Amino acid sequence: MKVTVATKILEANERIALENRRIFGKAGVYVINLMSGPGAGKTSLLEKTLSLNTGLRIGVIEGDIAGSCDAERIEKYGAPVVQINTGGACHLDANMICEVLHDLPLQELDLLIIENVGNLVCPAEFKVGEDIKIMLLSIAEGHDKPLKYPLMFQESSVLILNKIDLAPYIDVDINKIKKDALSLNPNLKIFEVSCKTGEGLSAWIDWLREAALKR
Amino acid sequence: MKVTVATKILEANERIALENRRIFGKAGVYVINLMSGPGAGKTSLLEKTLSLNTGLRIGVIEGDIAGSCDAERIEKYGAPVVQINTGGACHLDANMICEVLHDLPLQELDLLIIENVGNLVCPAEFKVGEDIKIMLLSIAEGHDKPLKYPLMFQESSVLILNKIDLAPYIDVDINKIKKDALSLNPNLKIFEVSCKTGEGLSAWIDWLREAALKR
Repeated sequence: MKVTVATKILEANERIALENRRIFGKAGVYVINLMSGPGAGKTSLLEKTLSLNTGLRIGVIEGDIAGSCDAERIEKYGAPVVQINTGGACHLDANMICEVLHDLPLQELDLLIIENVGNLVCPAEFKVGEDIKIMLLSIAEGHDKPLKYPLMFQESSVLILNKIDLAPYIDVDINKIKKDALSLNPNLKIFEVSCKTGEGLSAWIDWLREAALKR
Repeated sequence: MKVTVATKILEANERIALENRRIFGKAGVYVINLMSGPGAGKTSLLEKTLSLNTGLRIGVIEGDIAGSCDAERIEKYGAPVVQINTGGACHLDANMICEVLHDLPLQELDLLIIENVGNLVCPAEFKVGEDIKIMLLSIAEGHDKPLKYPLMFQESSVLILNKIDLAPYIDVDINKIKKDALSLNPNLKIFEVSCKTGEGLSAWIDWLREAALKR
């Protein structure tokens, strides 16, 4: 019974996600669904990305259970941004995105980044109309995460390992993270970055520019 | 419609949680529901707690979406442990706990610690039959977490701030975490610890011993 309900919810979500994707396609905007656990650095990555010279016109949708602090951080960079509060729900779904599309100047954007609720589990199950799913993992979360949260590593096309500046101070085996992530998803593209020091960000920006403009 | 279903699921869960609690009470075991986001250090806290001289007979239930690495870590300390794999579900519920109760020697335990799935959202909504909810937050997750994930801070009676050894290397305002957490939940008991260096753990152990034996 519970399974039936869940299946129906996922099917309805899939239909709305397809419609969102049609709208994004018509507007010519490349859409990223950015996911991670809490505090891995999604908003910091957005701030860095907006402050570097990408040549891209970027819009942002911020998803949080409560509060608007992430949207306020993004607004400072002059990017169009909408904050969604899920009011308890642990992930964004296609309908929430559909409801805010008219608040964004899609025609004027090359790239829309949707920052999902900080949660390494549920967001991986719900498409929102994105072209690509990208996940962040803070290396401070430890090297056991791929095997404990396999779906998100399987659903994502890109894995960004953040906070690599902390490597000297923590017991973490970055090679094990990469090995286990690739065993779940051999095509995963992996970046190692520090949003604090800026290390590794130029490779990410180069990849992002190419992906967005290829659309 | 979706709300109705969710309400029914929560009501059914509540009934089973009450029954679990009755069983725990009869066995005289104090039960902690330990929650946090991924990689905040729940298993490390358990390892440290088991290795220090608490004088308590402790059992553990490990909840993960997949894998048994946490139970293997706990087994090394000689504690009775059961691993639950939720197979995709983002939290433990009362029924999952009910199903493994016969695998634990409850009569021989003073304390049962249930380590929930690493998720700062959904576990806060589902009682499992615990006496108390305790949450961990790694300070590496940043100081915006109380305002972004208010329910877990409201539901928990104890907040353990872990990884305080990383404070010199990250931009985090620990006082803001404490202030915002206390504004959500004025009775919250807060510990600051490092499971890596051992700092702050003796205060936690003292509190735990007193809480478990008071039952």
